[in-house]
Amino acid sequence: MATTNENLKESFAGESQANQKYRAFAKKAEKEGFKNISKLFKTTAEAERIHAEGHLAALGMIASTADNLQAAIDGETEEFSNMYPPMLEQAEADGHKAKIMFKFALGAEEVHANLYAKALEAVKNGVDLDVSEFYLCSVCGYIELGAAPEKCPICSAKQSKFVQID
Amino acid sequence: MATTNENLKESFAGESQANQKYRAFAKKAEKEGFKNISKLFKTTAEAERIHAEGHLAALGMIASTADNLQAAIDGETEEFSNMYPPMLEQAEADGHKAKIMFKFALGAEEVHANLYAKALEAVKNGVDLDVSEFYLCSVCGYIELGAAPEKCPICSAKQSKFVQID
Ligand SMILES: [Fe+2]
Ligand SMILES: [Fe+2]
Ligand SMILES: [Fe+2]
Ligand SMILES: [Fe+2]
Ligand SMILES: [Fe+2]
Ligand SMILES: [Fe+2]
Repeated sequence: MATTNENLKESFAGESQANQKYRAFAKKAEKEGFKNISKLFKTTAEAERIHAEGHLAALGMIASTADNLQAAIDGETEEFSNMYPPMLEQAEADGHKAKIMFKFALGAEEVHANLYAKALEAVKNGVDLDVSEFYLCSVCGYIELGAAPEKCPICSAKQSKFVQID
Repeated sequence: MATTNENLKESFAGESQANQKYRAFAKKAEKEGFKNISKLFKTTAEAERIHAEGHLAALGMIASTADNLQAAIDGETEEFSNMYPPMLEQAEADGHKAKIMFKFALGAEEVHANLYAKALEAVKNGVDLDVSEFYLCSVCGYIELGAAPEKCPICSAKQSKFVQID
């Protein structure tokens, strides 16, 4: 019999993935002309986000911002150091299209880890990060501070592919 | 050595969970007064969504809307039939606060499955769902069509807790 802690991890993983699937399915429904079904997928995606957040809170994994940043740095570092390199190698050996996003993610996660480290330094000094403009490459997930670059250093996307969130 | 397909499943799970964590961490940073760090978390969450969507596409799991709806019905049914009931029972036996969201999710997933079944019926008839207003209970994830109920049938939240997405 699984413990409640194990159950929370499993259900958090399930809800998180359902959220992502429904968001992708919503886009697809929109493309196929099913506007209302797209809205249903988006609404249900948000329901799964609520479930995921509840499980994460019950796991005690929403801590102080300093601790959250450290957890984020650890996760990003694990991904670019240990998880993605062998995945990329295997996909390249297979000639599998997965290699494209594996490569983009590998590069982006290292940038994310560095940005979170900057943020953690600020928090340790009792202040907020002194940057308020973040430019996200909508192709690969690379993030640049202050202004969008002419060309993405990871995926070579042009400046117009950069977006700001919120 | 894992296959690329296995790697895609693992990385999709990882990216999906990172997205959820960062969204929750963004809220926490906002509450603690770190506005810019909150924005960094939100921006990075969106980067992980891009990675997750890329992996899901490489898995071939973004299909036609009819097939996506069937996959969604199967997932919801598995959750409310097999996954959540023993989790709820265990959390209740433990007196663990996880029982609250397990119970809400169990109820909500059944409603989601029924709504997706309606949508699939429409698609099979070559039409969109004939409802465009979806009201989501922001406490438990229950969804009502057409108008918000006075009280949520799953968690008893009042009407003002209902929201529309997009
Ligand atoms: Fe859920
Ligand atoms: Fe990342
Ligand atoms: Fe890029
Ligand atoms: Fe990522
Ligand atoms: Fe659901
Ligand atoms: Fe509710």
